[in-house]
Amino acid sequence: MTHVVMQGLSRAEKFRLVTGSVMPRPIALVTTLNADGSCNAAPFSAFNYMCDDPPLLAIGIDGYGAESGRIGETKDTLRNILERGAFVVNMVDADLLGDAVSCATDYPAGMSETDALGFELVASQSIDVPRLARAPMAWECRYHSKLDVSDIRTILIGEIVAMYFRPDLLDDQALRVRVEACAPVGRLGGPIYATTDNRRVLPIVPYRDLDGAKR
Amino acid sequence: MTHVVMQGLSRAEKFRLVTGSVMPRPIALVTTLNADGSCNAAPFSAFNYMCDDPPLLAIGIDGYGAESGRIGETKDTLRNILERGAFVVNMVDADLLGDAVSCATDYPAGMSETDALGFELVASQSIDVPRLARAPMAWECRYHSKLDVSDIRTILIGEIVAMYFRPDLLDDQALRVRVEACAPVGRLGGPIYATTDNRRVLPIVPYRDLDGAKR
Repeated sequence: MTHVVMQGLSRAEKFRLVTGSVMPRPIALVTTLNADGSCNAAPFSAFNYMCDDPPLLAIGIDGYGAESGRIGETKDTLRNILERGAFVVNMVDADLLGDAVSCATDYPAGMSETDALGFELVASQSIDVPRLARAPMAWECRYHSKLDVSDIRTILIGEIVAMYFRPDLLDDQALRVRVEACAPVGRLGGPIYATTDNRRVLPIVPYRDLDGAKR
Repeated sequence: MTHVVMQGLSRAEKFRLVTGSVMPRPIALVTTLNADGSCNAAPFSAFNYMCDDPPLLAIGIDGYGAESGRIGETKDTLRNILERGAFVVNMVDADLLGDAVSCATDYPAGMSETDALGFELVASQSIDVPRLARAPMAWECRYHSKLDVSDIRTILIGEIVAMYFRPDLLDDQALRVRVEACAPVGRLGGPIYATTDNRRVLPIVPYRDLDGAKR
């Protein structure tokens, strides 16, 4: 069988097929503040930028699943974003990956992953939610809008209001990221992640410069 | 400078900073049908799945930019999706990458990239838009909804109704993707792409199994 129709599959089957077929996915390690002011950190790979102007990102956020011990509860991240209207997307590189995955553990509601894992926090510039000191880059974000796509699943849209860059990662004269100095990791299917050290450079050729065979 | 506020930047600066900081991005090589029945193919890296149940994806689609020679026009992909209500997301692996990038050339409106580049097309199962024979995996999608985020920029939500897998990539008994046989590539900043051959396996440890130091 090479064709699979989605209708009629179990949720677990849909999850496996969807997340096993869109790869590599960038990882947002999202920090938010709990009601008591402690910090929550959770990784999401249903995540990407959606627009550069205005600078918008999307994150797909599920309720807790059967494996969590907290089935049916709203994710702490979504609750906190809706309550405070702000969050930070911490980007994940090879150095941060292990601890980012540890943040996906089913800690009890309100328990701080950043406390449990010993993350150093740094105040943001434009919002009152901190970033992780170890994140190589981070986006300071405000809530923009959301689309509830089922009883327990939401597509969250955020606006990037400011960015932090580790100094070696930004050419601050050209306002250009030094991609050659970055080591982001992507999520593949299941517990599999990929580093990005094998690279190819492929510029887009304008139509006017194409050779005849491709016109 | 390590903090950059978005407000007041030019569009080009926002584009460079946003796309240079969220990496690696999966690549959707989207096929649609033009009004005359010819096939359009265009790559998008403002793309990811957003929900597994229902199985939804999001793609950020801009109007054509200054570099295109077609400034201000609606992207052929968006126009075609809105007219036909259907499209295919062809996944991009290392073998397909070069031709996927070539599809980003500013071909004149209505000109078929798949004709120009000699792609073999294969009929889909659930929709009337074809997939690319060389794509290792493909999602047959229907239009779900959209969010217009500026005069020329749209976040498109699609529903995956069926999937195609190259036979070696699917364990059809377990309904599980053989990630070890997949060679997806991700987009980094600018014209830089990364293969995914260096991998790490990091399962999430449940809270009940954590050692004391992380509780």
